[in-house]
Amino acid sequence: MSYFKNVNHVKYEGPDSINPLAYKYYNPEETVNGKKMEELLRFAVSYWHTFTGEGTDPFGQNTMVRPYNKFSGMDLAKARVEASFEFYEKLNVPYFCFHDFDVAPEADSLSETFKNLDEIVAMIKEYMKTSKTKLLWNTANMFSHPRWLHGASTSPNADVFAYAAAKVKKGLEIGKELGSENYVFWGGREGYDTLLNTNMKLELDNLARFFHMALDYSKEIGYDAQFLIEPKPKEPTKHQYDFDVATSLAFLQSYGLKDHFKFNIEANHATLAGHTFEHELHVARINGMLGSVDANQGDTLLGWDTDEFPTDLYSTTLAMYEILKNDGLGTGGLNFDAKVRRGSFDPEDLFYSHIAGMDSFAIGAKVAQRLIEDKVLDKFVADRYSSYTEGIGLDIVEGKTNFHKLEQYALQLDTIENKSGRQEYLKGILNKYILDAVASVSVK
Amino acid sequence: MSYFKNVNHVKYEGPDSINPLAYKYYNPEETVNGKKMEELLRFAVSYWHTFTGEGTDPFGQNTMVRPYNKFSGMDLAKARVEASFEFYEKLNVPYFCFHDFDVAPEADSLSETFKNLDEIVAMIKEYMKTSKTKLLWNTANMFSHPRWLHGASTSPNADVFAYAAAKVKKGLEIGKELGSENYVFWGGREGYDTLLNTNMKLELDNLARFFHMALDYSKEIGYDAQFLIEPKPKEPTKHQYDFDVATSLAFLQSYGLKDHFKFNIEANHATLAGHTFEHELHVARINGMLGSVDANQGDTLLGWDTDEFPTDLYSTTLAMYEILKNDGLGTGGLNFDAKVRRGSFDPEDLFYSHIAGMDSFAIGAKVAQRLIEDKVLDKFVADRYSSYTEGIGLDIVEGKTNFHKLEQYALQLDTIENKSGRQEYLKGILNKYILDAVASVSVK
Amino acid sequence: MSYFKNVNHVKYEGPDSINPLAYKYYNPEETVNGKKMEELLRFAVSYWHTFTGEGTDPFGQNTMVRPYNKFSGMDLAKARVEASFEFYEKLNVPYFCFHDFDVAPEADSLSETFKNLDEIVAMIKEYMKTSKTKLLWNTANMFSHPRWLHGASTSPNADVFAYAAAKVKKGLEIGKELGSENYVFWGGREGYDTLLNTNMKLELDNLARFFHMALDYSKEIGYDAQFLIEPKPKEPTKHQYDFDVATSLAFLQSYGLKDHFKFNIEANHATLAGHTFEHELHVARINGMLGSVDANQGDTLLGWDTDEFPTDLYSTTLAMYEILKNDGLGTGGLNFDAKVRRGSFDPEDLFYSHIAGMDSFAIGAKVAQRLIEDKVLDKFVADRYSSYTEGIGLDIVEGKTNFHKLEQYALQLDTIENKSGRQEYLKGILNKYILDAVASVSVK
Amino acid sequence: MSYFKNVNHVKYEGPDSINPLAYKYYNPEETVNGKKMEELLRFAVSYWHTFTGEGTDPFGQNTMVRPYNKFSGMDLAKARVEASFEFYEKLNVPYFCFHDFDVAPEADSLSETFKNLDEIVAMIKEYMKTSKTKLLWNTANMFSHPRWLHGASTSPNADVFAYAAAKVKKGLEIGKELGSENYVFWGGREGYDTLLNTNMKLELDNLARFFHMALDYSKEIGYDAQFLIEPKPKEPTKHQYDFDVATSLAFLQSYGLKDHFKFNIEANHATLAGHTFEHELHVARINGMLGSVDANQGDTLLGWDTDEFPTDLYSTTLAMYEILKNDGLGTGGLNFDAKVRRGSFDPEDLFYSHIAGMDSFAIGAKVAQRLIEDKVLDKFVADRYSSYTEGIGLDIVEGKTNFHKLEQYALQLDTIENKSGRQEYLKGILNKYILDAVASVSVK
Repeated sequence: MSYFKNVNHVKYEGPDSINPLAYKYYNPEETVNGKKMEELLRFAVSYWHTFTGEGTDPFGQNTMVRPYNKFSGMDLAKARVEASFEFYEKLNVPYFCFHDFDVAPEADSLSETFKNLDEIVAMIKEYMKTSKTKLLWNTANMFSHPRWLHGASTSPNADVFAYAAAKVKKGLEIGKELGSENYVFWGGREGYDTLLNTNMKLELDNLARFFHMALDYSKEIGYDAQFLIEPKPKEPTKHQYDFDVATSLAFLQSYGLKDHFKFNIEANHATLAGHTFEHELHVARINGMLGSVDANQGDTLLGWDTDEFPTDLYSTTLAMYEILKNDGLGTGGLNFDAKVRRGSFDPEDLFYSHIAGMDSFAIGAKVAQRLIEDKVLDKFVADRYSSYTEGIGLDIVEGKTNFHKLEQYALQLDTIENKSGRQEYLKGILNKYILDAVASVSVK
Repeated sequence: MSYFKNVNHVKYEGPDSINPLAYKYYNPEETVNGKKMEELLRFAVSYWHTFTGEGTDPFGQNTMVRPYNKFSGMDLAKARVEASFEFYEKLNVPYFCFHDFDVAPEADSLSETFKNLDEIVAMIKEYMKTSKTKLLWNTANMFSHPRWLHGASTSPNADVFAYAAAKVKKGLEIGKELGSENYVFWGGREGYDTLLNTNMKLELDNLARFFHMALDYSKEIGYDAQFLIEPKPKEPTKHQYDFDVATSLAFLQSYGLKDHFKFNIEANHATLAGHTFEHELHVARINGMLGSVDANQGDTLLGWDTDEFPTDLYSTTLAMYEILKNDGLGTGGLNFDAKVRRGSFDPEDLFYSHIAGMDSFAIGAKVAQRLIEDKVLDKFVADRYSSYTEGIGLDIVEGKTNFHKLEQYALQLDTIENKSGRQEYLKGILNKYILDAVASVSVK
Repeated sequence: MSYFKNVNHVKYEGPDSINPLAYKYYNPEETVNGKKMEELLRFAVSYWHTFTGEGTDPFGQNTMVRPYNKFSGMDLAKARVEASFEFYEKLNVPYFCFHDFDVAPEADSLSETFKNLDEIVAMIKEYMKTSKTKLLWNTANMFSHPRWLHGASTSPNADVFAYAAAKVKKGLEIGKELGSENYVFWGGREGYDTLLNTNMKLELDNLARFFHMALDYSKEIGYDAQFLIEPKPKEPTKHQYDFDVATSLAFLQSYGLKDHFKFNIEANHATLAGHTFEHELHVARINGMLGSVDANQGDTLLGWDTDEFPTDLYSTTLAMYEILKNDGLGTGGLNFDAKVRRGSFDPEDLFYSHIAGMDSFAIGAKVAQRLIEDKVLDKFVADRYSSYTEGIGLDIVEGKTNFHKLEQYALQLDTIENKSGRQEYLKGILNKYILDAVASVSVK
Repeated sequence: MSYFKNVNHVKYEGPDSINPLAYKYYNPEETVNGKKMEELLRFAVSYWHTFTGEGTDPFGQNTMVRPYNKFSGMDLAKARVEASFEFYEKLNVPYFCFHDFDVAPEADSLSETFKNLDEIVAMIKEYMKTSKTKLLWNTANMFSHPRWLHGASTSPNADVFAYAAAKVKKGLEIGKELGSENYVFWGGREGYDTLLNTNMKLELDNLARFFHMALDYSKEIGYDAQFLIEPKPKEPTKHQYDFDVATSLAFLQSYGLKDHFKFNIEANHATLAGHTFEHELHVARINGMLGSVDANQGDTLLGWDTDEFPTDLYSTTLAMYEILKNDGLGTGGLNFDAKVRRGSFDPEDLFYSHIAGMDSFAIGAKVAQRLIEDKVLDKFVADRYSSYTEGIGLDIVEGKTNFHKLEQYALQLDTIENKSGRQEYLKGILNKYILDAVASVSVK
């Protein structure tokens, strides 16, 4: 059966198309930076928002109209799997991602839950045999059920820690089974609600212990997935331990875990932490830890995780700039951790929103590539820091100087000449490149 | 003499130009919505940021390199006037705006200050005779001098109220003298720092008394300028009485002032109040009170008024959409209440930044006009609310129903069918229009 | 049967008590400002957070352990009524508040829903006969069900408007039946998610039409409840039309509704709008529109409505200061629109949290009364504005002056002498009063 | 001569005093936690806010009335030194802190600037001989002068790096000369304004090089001061590299600097980063890096560094809780990095504000000590995490388990029983302790 009867295969039709169910900028076969767009961008569909999400918000109930909602329990789970592969195919998207809980319902006992999972995972595996769509990453939902209310591996309750271990153990096995190249940790409840009742030191120690055990187990079963931490500063908790890239980096360094993890950066999490998306990508990149991306956008005038589909071309361009500078995302990809608005409840909206997001990142990729090709920013930056390539600047960089020599140098300086940072000029250039890159497509 | 020797007249060269000192999208002669761009956009240069501003911030001193900085006192004031008209001409901009304090230094006594002002105003008037550039609006600076530290017309000190009255009286006379079509009130200190020491009711009453006296005086001297209130929520004070458009509207209504004022909307003030720029423009528009615009942009991840030059094309497009729907700004204009970054200290940066801002609004105007021409949003909205054009909906709108009839109607409804709001689809469309409008220019 | 077996009647035991289930500061019989605390504070329990709330959040499921959760449907509704009156009695609280939807489940048809409501309302009425606890206000939930996803009286769908009318009609009838002195409107979905698809003018017109019809019906049935608007700026929508007190005031003025409404001010909504709690109370008060209070607190480092129980003594003191200055809340009260944290899931936590909130407001009331009695702030403020009680200041206030006279006055001023605002001194005084008011109790 | 003639020595007079120029809670001789308050709290006056600060803000000029403002240049600098020691003595405060730039004016050349510094430092040293007040820390102002506009040790200009080195070299020499036990780094310009023109990697490398050279020089001259980094997330720049404790910790770890630095935590910087003050103190403490405190408070409804005097008793209590748990601040102290409001311009306001701050921390210290003595939170926390002291929990903590064993354990668990976090109860307790600790003083 078909779940999305009103929608055919979404194809690239170019910028002049007025077909709302066509790509106007994302051409999977087009080459950007020496790679086909499909291979560069590695788009993934988020199972939770797209197939499991129901449109609830803190003040409202389910709104989504979904063809499989007539089912329930395991039947619903199976119908969603069917629908999901139809969706991947129609959208022509190379990856998907899921939490255990998204694909199979929890049962009364853990063993029963595992049984449900096994059944669905087998079904997914079967579908994957004939589908081009692969698993970008999977993870364990350790935040929805009430047992996690005080944390998972940072719970004050050791039983919860054990339960979490069992879940991640299973998750690693599933990842291996389905050939996922990454495994993600998002610690939505790994944090605190009030310091008044919290032993933060013990919780952090336990979090590190948990990660070490996960690494050990992964090694034991010969599963060499890239482990990814997904930082988020707050929400649902008051403070989450993986606040942002820098905070998570400090944690990984403190506990000897740095070499085994990279980051899965989410745009909306970045802005909730007070950073731009590109800042978080940049910090991860210069630390060699840019692993994957949760491609969405927030509303910086709202104080919660809105998880909107990414359509802001400034954001997609600057993100792609970091990704191209990183020579791509390696085993990672661009996962749409984004949900249609509660009021966009039609199945068609799932297509409109993914198309909007994919086109936006395709444009971003083209613009970023051109900026890099033309060395627009590179030249400006190189010139701006050129004083470190000779004289006293080179001595500084090469470690050949000290406070004595620098003082001597400074004392004989007449005046110091700084150069303008030219921010407004550069922003004008950025606009020009955004408009030009597409104009160039337009005439193609 | 020339103050900006390195810069020639900035001309429109089209999108393919790589001349950093040319307009790529702003073509003053090009027609948008039946008006020449120059007449539609009515760009103005802010005297304070551009000629008086020195690049200080709360942690740092002056950085700006300005050719007239070798002068001081009235000589500096005169040099700035000369430089300003050279700047207007080279930029080919039709308007400028100033605070009294920007153009002439305050002296020890008010009468001396007025003398300074008279001298400079006469000089400006002389320059205006041979310049195409006119005064969009002037205003009185009633926030910088320590006398205003607790407010101007809302000061707890009646002497300060009187002093403020004298300043605005002079300001109205200057506006008349220079042919300004608007007079602006920005109440940067009209608010409170703590409720603990504040009589808000008296302060609001006094603010209203002040406005009534200003209206009386304006009438008396036969000066029919449009009075404009510029809302801002906070900064420098904890709370400003003109928080946003809605708050100011409530005030104007409460004190019988509504018919005599319109709003001067600033983008960065909107976001500081938790609103988008277009929201504030929209609220002013549907109340018939959209008067003028302070064209800038903020950084929503920073909590203060950054007053950046406007380069965000989403923002300029949605602003121009409101302005075109308003059939233009009437006597108002787009005033760049924007400052070059502290690190963009060269005189050339003043040109780069204005060019970036003017090009961005020109693009916004083109995109907005196309959205309106094609009725893209209008059609969607009309369809979305079509239930109010017939049946029970029409009864509601025409006042022909009541709770009894509506209850009867509701009780017999089987199900309620809502339509998807299609937010993601509309955002994709917006991107397409932004890219297309310029692509169309590109091929011209 | 008893639903809260582990808890006896909560009594006042004084500040030295270490009984966690006793009031330490709230003594219902003690007199503050000439009224018994019980009559001054008029505490109310929120049915939704306390009996219907389940501890969900956007990332997690129900956590609350509630003795009646073994029931479902109408049985659950009835068990909650029983539990609620046991709770009111044990807490000794004079009021409660509810949404229709909190007390009775929605059915498939509106008529069936009304039948459910009638049955439960009759049961509540029966319980009220033998209970001292009265209904402070009721309201209609017009935000949870998917039919409201684009608004209720501001929905683009006229059927939804009609449905809302039927609900509020019923709500007014229930209010009359149960003797409620107020009726509350909280427009959680009355706003927009994006301007791109919104006709704000029509929506505001319809909102006003709705209010006028509600007033008409209320008059028709001889129900003279105070109508209350509860402002909130955002969440669940991007922008809510009742953003804050000032915005709602502008709306009420524009549509001729001002005389018929007062405000129900919520602390957490105030801070989400960028205001302090006391600011919103103050603005409502000086406009004669302070009607009632939703007593809670937010976390200003988090960007959503956390609805915490109010324990911040600065906040409760400054709130009570406004309330005492308002000569109490009239028909309004202090409704705990506050929920126990998701991790505080025991029934006992409902008692701990209400006790913490009631004690905090009792302390606030004592401190505020003392500040007023001692005229601490009044004297300071009177002195600060004394220049308006004589000379030029009095002329200003009495409307006897104009810009000519004020200019003359200003021109002859030698210097302007302002007085220090003494904010730090006043904050020190506030601390002293908070500590003293309780110390005085302690020795009683 | 006397600069503060209207103020005598400020003494402890107890909570019943109504003398505004007396301590009501800070009794330097009283013992808290086995130390005299004076020795525990180690209050310091900030030279910049108190003697150099003039009351400017981004929209206004100097307001402060200061008796030494009749002087200028080096005369002003000397008068400030005189005034400062009179202030320390009258306030009876054991420490002060300064930037080089606060105490001596910059001259045209660096050598001249150093001469000015030498002269003033000699004068300060002379005053210190007969004063009990010592230098808590000094630092170099590397943010005010335009040369720092793009950073100091992270400037794109190597000359600026050299200049910064000379300044810090001098600062270390001054610190040694005056016997300061700490040296502080606040990198107000060490960050970026836009990533478009920034080489973050080089900047961070240079920052680390700079710190290593500073350590080398300190060692060379035998000056074993504690080096302190003061995190701040933003303002003046868009992003500062020392964003918060965790970010700075990551940096220190990455560059092998961790063992040589501790943190100077500022309350207002914490909240600007989205954290509570106590969070930052806690994170520093559990990493063994809590060095010193900049005692102030921000306004979380305003988005900039307001640097208010600390009067919030919740904040001072929870801060002192961390400090007592840290067994005090070692060589650090509580420095009032706080400024009187612009409207509090009288010299007396300097006393009122320091008194308010010192009393608030004294209260906080007493409350915190009692909380610790009574083990109120300790017992609750110990019980909450007790599952890690036995069985599977102990195995986890002792590293005796793995995913296999944990899965086995989890599979046989019937249900998981979590305990309530009791946040509301704990907040009620906190209120009681705040009120009680002072009540107990009151009856003394």
